Amino acid sequence: MILVCNDDGITAPGIRTLVKVMKEIGEVVVVAPDSPQSATGHGITIANTLRLEESRALEDLTGVEAWECSGTPADCVKLAKHHVLKDRKPDLVVSGINHGSNSSISVLYSGTMSAAIEAAIEGLPAIGFSLCDYGAQADFSHIENYVAHIARQALTHGIPVGTALNVNFPKKSDKAIAGIKVCRQARAKWQEEFDERRDPNNRRYFWLTGTFVNDDQGEDTDEWALAQNYVSIVPCQFDMTATFAMAQINNNWELKSR
Amino acid sequence: MILVCNDDGITAPGIRTLVKVMKEIGEVVVVAPDSPQSATGHGITIANTLRLEESRALEDLTGVEAWECSGTPADCVKLAKHHVLKDRKPDLVVSGINHGSNSSISVLYSGTMSAAIEAAIEGLPAIGFSLCDYGAQADFSHIENYVAHIARQALTHGIPVGTALNVNFPKKSDKAIAGIKVCRQARAKWQEEFDERRDPNNRRYFWLTGTFVNDDQGEDTDEWALAQNYVSIVPCQFDMTATFAMAQINNNWELKSR
Repeated sequence: MILVCNDDGITAPGIRTLVKVMKEIGEVVVVAPDSPQSATGHGITIANTLRLEESRALEDLTGVEAWECSGTPADCVKLAKHHVLKDRKPDLVVSGINHGSNSSISVLYSGTMSAAIEAAIEGLPAIGFSLCDYGAQADFSHIENYVAHIARQALTHGIPVGTALNVNFPKKSDKAIAGIKVCRQARAKWQEEFDERRDPNNRRYFWLTGTFVNDDQGEDTDEWALAQNYVSIVPCQFDMTATFAMAQINNNWELKSR
Repeated sequence: MILVCNDDGITAPGIRTLVKVMKEIGEVVVVAPDSPQSATGHGITIANTLRLEESRALEDLTGVEAWECSGTPADCVKLAKHHVLKDRKPDLVVSGINHGSNSSISVLYSGTMSAAIEAAIEGLPAIGFSLCDYGAQADFSHIENYVAHIARQALTHGIPVGTALNVNFPKKSDKAIAGIKVCRQARAKWQEEFDERRDPNNRRYFWLTGTFVNDDQGEDTDEWALAQNYVSIVPCQFDMTATFAMAQINNNWELKSR
């Protein structure tokens, strides 16, 4: 059985594509947000209540069990495991297909990837899929075979323990996809700008905008692969320890008793 | 100049303690959420507007420039950099002191740490401080010297590039703090449970609860250090690439052209 989640909400075209592809591979259970939850990072709902209802949003895709949840993508995976699935253990957890890139540093902000990482914390093989096209009506047709192939590879060969896969696809174009590359996360970041406006009461407010800036010239990065029209796969760990930094601090800092 | 943020909101006792300690070290600018933002993970606000107002919440601590923001901790750091500080570059960014532990896997869910990591992405030395006491009126008196010492060490010796420090303190007790340990993140997780209830209209809702489960017996972990009454420091990276997993996938998976 394959558990499907996303962050754009259960009515997004991306999750519909993902469900259609996964239906060809196995039994599908969907637990997804009832509204868009982009950029929620690994947020969870602790100071508020959660709703969980059976959903009719995907009822035309017959044979799919679908639930919608008021919480974040990580909440969805937690509720799926502990309430919807109970003793049914998924063979694979897939999240997406996100409308927009989650490559490089965007993985940190990504609700799509937080669902996959939450599943990985639970010891489940998990993949987040994202298309580098932010459009609400993005075209997913060129990647369906790749999504199916990657899911089948994960089911056959497994996903390294302690990781979830961050898979990004090039936007549809005239060029055929060049293949699949296993990559490292590029050292890039968002250069924020804030659009400052006045509300009807003349009170100031801001919209966050920004530009993606990539200074990493490595040819082993997800950004490089996507620019060359490859599918990028970055295995992501949830152990955030910077082992290299531990010795630096121990050697340079005064840590004796206070 | 030291930039101070948190996730419990600008009125929390923890940020007040942190501001008092930092005032002894340098000039302080606070940009913090106007309401509690615990467990927001690395969420940012992209589908809604942001407010930013000068705050009087800390006006009794004279000489402190304070702003409150309607967004997440990561939003606060972005707005601080791009709107409040502009050309003023902080020597250090500190977040907290969180009311509750952010050790082990909790770092992923932590708004406190997301502020520190956001600053680290911007190339700034950054530390998240958390006290293992969830109480709204937690006692921070036993850790003030440690907070000051760690901040001074960071200012003097720096923080390894590409990392932010996750510092956790034992709850106040009869035992004196044993010292400071540089640690790795323990392999532990939250075992969720959901408290299912009925609202006045007889519609079902859930509260997320859970128990922290640590199966990691290593004596080099943050959990071990805290259990022995040490202060734990875990350097956290925002490159999530699981390098060890890249070869595993390349060797085992069929990745040739589709």
